[in-house]
Amino acid sequence: MKINVIEEQDIAEIVTNRKNRDAVQYDVIDERVKSIVQTIRRDGDEAVRGYIKSLDGVDLNNVVVSAQEIEEAYTRVSDDMMAVLTEAKENIQTYHAKQKETSWYSHNADGVWLGQQVTPIVRIGVYVPGGKAAYPSTVLMNIMPAVVAGVSDITVTTPVQPDGTVNPMTLVGADLAGASRILKIGGAHGIATLAYGTESITPVDKIVGPGNAYVARAKKYVFGDVGIDMIAGPSEVCVVADETANPAYVAADLLAQAEHDELASAVAVTTSEAIASAIQTEVERQMKTRDRQAILQESVTNQGAIYVTTDLEMAMTFVNAWAPEHLELQISHPFEWLPSVKHAGAIFLGHYTPEPLGDYFAGPNHTLPTNGTAKFSSPLGVYDFMKKSSVIYYTDDALEQVRQQVEQFAGEEGLDGHRDAVRIRFDEK
Amino acid sequence: MKINVIEEQDIAEIVTNRKNRDAVQYDVIDERVKSIVQTIRRDGDEAVRGYIKSLDGVDLNNVVVSAQEIEEAYTRVSDDMMAVLTEAKENIQTYHAKQKETSWYSHNADGVWLGQQVTPIVRIGVYVPGGKAAYPSTVLMNIMPAVVAGVSDITVTTPVQPDGTVNPMTLVGADLAGASRILKIGGAHGIATLAYGTESITPVDKIVGPGNAYVARAKKYVFGDVGIDMIAGPSEVCVVADETANPAYVAADLLAQAEHDELASAVAVTTSEAIASAIQTEVERQMKTRDRQAILQESVTNQGAIYVTTDLEMAMTFVNAWAPEHLELQISHPFEWLPSVKHAGAIFLGHYTPEPLGDYFAGPNHTLPTNGTAKFSSPLGVYDFMKKSSVIYYTDDALEQVRQQVEQFAGEEGLDGHRDAVRIRFDEK
Repeated sequence: MKINVIEEQDIAEIVTNRKNRDAVQYDVIDERVKSIVQTIRRDGDEAVRGYIKSLDGVDLNNVVVSAQEIEEAYTRVSDDMMAVLTEAKENIQTYHAKQKETSWYSHNADGVWLGQQVTPIVRIGVYVPGGKAAYPSTVLMNIMPAVVAGVSDITVTTPVQPDGTVNPMTLVGADLAGASRILKIGGAHGIATLAYGTESITPVDKIVGPGNAYVARAKKYVFGDVGIDMIAGPSEVCVVADETANPAYVAADLLAQAEHDELASAVAVTTSEAIASAIQTEVERQMKTRDRQAILQESVTNQGAIYVTTDLEMAMTFVNAWAPEHLELQISHPFEWLPSVKHAGAIFLGHYTPEPLGDYFAGPNHTLPTNGTAKFSSPLGVYDFMKKSSVIYYTDDALEQVRQQVEQFAGEEGLDGHRDAVRIRFDEK
Repeated sequence: MKINVIEEQDIAEIVTNRKNRDAVQYDVIDERVKSIVQTIRRDGDEAVRGYIKSLDGVDLNNVVVSAQEIEEAYTRVSDDMMAVLTEAKENIQTYHAKQKETSWYSHNADGVWLGQQVTPIVRIGVYVPGGKAAYPSTVLMNIMPAVVAGVSDITVTTPVQPDGTVNPMTLVGADLAGASRILKIGGAHGIATLAYGTESITPVDKIVGPGNAYVARAKKYVFGDVGIDMIAGPSEVCVVADETANPAYVAADLLAQAEHDELASAVAVTTSEAIASAIQTEVERQMKTRDRQAILQESVTNQGAIYVTTDLEMAMTFVNAWAPEHLELQISHPFEWLPSVKHAGAIFLGHYTPEPLGDYFAGPNHTLPTNGTAKFSSPLGVYDFMKKSSVIYYTDDALEQVRQQVEQFAGEEGLDGHRDAVRIRFDEK
């Protein structure tokens, strides 16, 4: 983990270099994804079973997880963990309930009504990764906002394991959160199945959830035919630390991020050179005690950095250029500085709000915009599972009052059919 | 325009056939788009000028519209039209102001703060089509929600005309709405320039606005690196008419939609066979008086239909399966039936609310989800130009109360670094 002193004029370059980290060419994956999607659209269930056999190595008769399998999965989760899952679920539900929007209507004295009707999406697909990355927190974080939104049909899909089963924690999480059904279909074939359906599976309206490069590119490919949440990149944290920060806490939080994978990026920005070197020492010390040595070594070396700035103002300039997925403000007056934050997925204030608290438990969503996309996108939320319709009502008198303006506008755009749709209501009354 | 009596069980098939209308292969366009984007990313301004020369046939020294050009454009718009534009702008602003979300924070007795900070996107790009489709309404509808959201930097880009100028109505609309600058760059090269910038042009964070197939595919290609609004298909209307409907009004509204282009789809659903044939007669009669004969003929014949259903309930079942961009309820009690509408871009209630009123004037946005995407997406709105950050603050006591749950969750997911980030705050206090 390097320590760099940054000047304001260097910030743009640092940010650009980090963006280039992801300028990967996806041509080979894209060709494969396209072929998988087109085959499943054409051949349906048979193609899905074929891909599960060739890609997952399993000969599956039934891709739908049975009630018995779900029941069995519950027996494999400890009572303690069930209590934690339930409490986490409640916290997530409580936070997300505040995001729920309602329809509104307004009218004026002329008899004009305008409004916005808000309705839930009907069918949602949730992709849940398998293997090492089978996280029950992901299941809760992706399903609960849909449940709060009022989505009535939630299909979870997740890769089947070589023995024909699915990770029990995924099953319990999905069932607890309120999934309507769970499919054993991973990868791009899982996304294709959700997007277009088969003889036996109804297509969904929108797909959310993280996955590997095949899943991410498949989501981009089907985007437009169905909705998708976002295209997530490697995870990242930016910790802002002033002289009141505890270097051990900062280091621990950087390592928590770095352990996700080799491309995960953990960066600290501090106003104190002493704190900077103390963080560096702590990273070295604590890293030795962690399980995921190889991953940590690589992500800390290649993606980690500690930047020293002259003051907190410049640290915030860096933060807003970086637009981190996770931002921690380990500073003495975090609430005072919060308004300076323009772009971040989630903001953790103070010395006792480590990022893992948000991953599992506090309530806000852990699916967050990565790689600078916090400049234009939001955490996964209830708003991702609802949509709006505009509503307009004019009386005949109200229309008559504005008919001239509308007719002129239509005429100016050269659309006489638009003009005459208004005109006919008065000329042929 | 055919008249078909539909049974409930036929609805799915009708909807599927309509969806297939757009199952076009974009391979050739996609290859071209990729090459344009990559060239502009590599060669910047020089590449942009090169594409303007080869694709638009213009040798441009300066791609930015000058203050003088804008001034000149104002002289070419009549006073009447300026007044209409200004009134439309105000109506759009008033409606969209109601969409603006604000940040919220809440806390509990344990010292836990949770919140959601809402901030505007900083840099927005608005694509405005040129040529025949240069509509000032498009300019207002795409810029005003960004202005209401508080976006501080709005770049409009639009194709240059063969004489090196830009449609004056586009310039006036953009300037009136509050654009920061206007570029003379159309097509996929316009999208690439907005997304990645050049030596002389700062990239934007999100791109909105309609365009041809190259523009649409370019938006899909850059999606993820920047935000985009939606991928729009051909325009469409669905008019529900009961026995109180005036067939002449219904026909006029169908034709207003059909005149957009050959793929535009205008469909009526009525509970009355008499009304159905009256609509058909009216379409024939009125069509003869309209300007765009060839377009109308083709879209009415190929994309138009009048469906007869047994009752309004079944008409609504059809509507919700169809999920039209524009829905008109020309029925006696439209407010009563409004709650039955689950999926539609914009809903026009009653006999005196023709769709063109919404295109230009009433206030709600005219950029709407097409081709069934109203099942998962919304009209363009202020929410497209703002984004959210989650906020979390725990005191040391509050964290201590839940540390066991968080540590157990992290342990269960096999992430000891996550667990230790919590643990270190108490074990090394």
